[in-house]
Amino acid sequence: MKFCSECGEKVGLKVPEGDHLPRFVCGDCDTIHYQNPKVVAGAVLEYEGKILMCKRAIEPRYGFWTVPAGFMENKETVMQAAARETYEEALAVPEKIELYGVYNLAHVNQVYIMFQGKLAKPEFGPGPESLDVKLVEEQDMPWEDMAFKVVTMTLQRYFTDRKHGDFRAFTDDVVVK
Amino acid sequence: MKFCSECGEKVGLKVPEGDHLPRFVCGDCDTIHYQNPKVVAGAVLEYEGKILMCKRAIEPRYGFWTVPAGFMENKETVMQAAARETYEEALAVPEKIELYGVYNLAHVNQVYIMFQGKLAKPEFGPGPESLDVKLVEEQDMPWEDMAFKVVTMTLQRYFTDRKHGDFRAFTDDVVVK
Repeated sequence: MKFCSECGEKVGLKVPEGDHLPRFVCGDCDTIHYQNPKVVAGAVLEYEGKILMCKRAIEPRYGFWTVPAGFMENKETVMQAAARETYEEALAVPEKIELYGVYNLAHVNQVYIMFQGKLAKPEFGPGPESLDVKLVEEQDMPWEDMAFKVVTMTLQRYFTDRKHGDFRAFTDDVVVK
Repeated sequence: MKFCSECGEKVGLKVPEGDHLPRFVCGDCDTIHYQNPKVVAGAVLEYEGKILMCKRAIEPRYGFWTVPAGFMENKETVMQAAARETYEEALAVPEKIELYGVYNLAHVNQVYIMFQGKLAKPEFGPGPESLDVKLVEEQDMPWEDMAFKVVTMTLQRYFTDRKHGDFRAFTDDVVVK
């Protein structure tokens, strides 16, 4: 951030009065520009035991596999965001989804909020951000070709939880060395 | 948003190619300025059956009651944010907290992520953003003087769950008419 989005003048880093962290503050109109983590909403969706997986047609990680997930927009709920991303990336409609995992990716200022649930019907296909969309059995998961560590962690936990039939929501941290 | 934070020129609303929503786009350098919901992290903290409550010394809702909660910062986890807010607002240290509620406040583009747990010790006091901090019994809760509907909803659910001893994490929507 170099300029104030309110008045167009230059911003500088300083700790505002009563605050404890440096913020971008406008030198002219004194507007404080806070920067905060973004929410990514995603979903593990099952149909007859298989998981809906998308092969990315966009960077980063073009050609690698993920569950449907993407940045939450203003004016929507996290659940709506997960359903919207499922439709945009996989042309599929979740039947019923429940809160599953809250993952911190503090190194990139992201919070992934994952849901789990079922696909209503085996109807899906590649949206504009996907090269391919498939229903994948656990034993066929492309573990070596996953797009992101958070996807691997979510799916590993999901398959463990599925054995016990308990998808209690949890929080965990994704730490990248 | 009126000006580009990268180059200082004017921005306008338009739907970028491949996108489906209007964004603020710079007329000069073409930078797209996405706007996304913010995460608020908070905690219901118990000590000997009483809940840690803070009376707000800041607007909005000056003088009304809340559990410790505030905007998540970059480079921290949601749990760290909840613990930090607890210290800043109530000078208290959570012993152990677990994921509890994910509330959508779509009308104000916020996602509240609430934790529940215990206070390590009955040591607390008003930080700079609080007029007063107290441990409050369920029957003494200031229901008529709560700062925000999300706080009321969280505490109501907490007392119900406490009867059953099961604090399974959930998601819910706060709808303001």
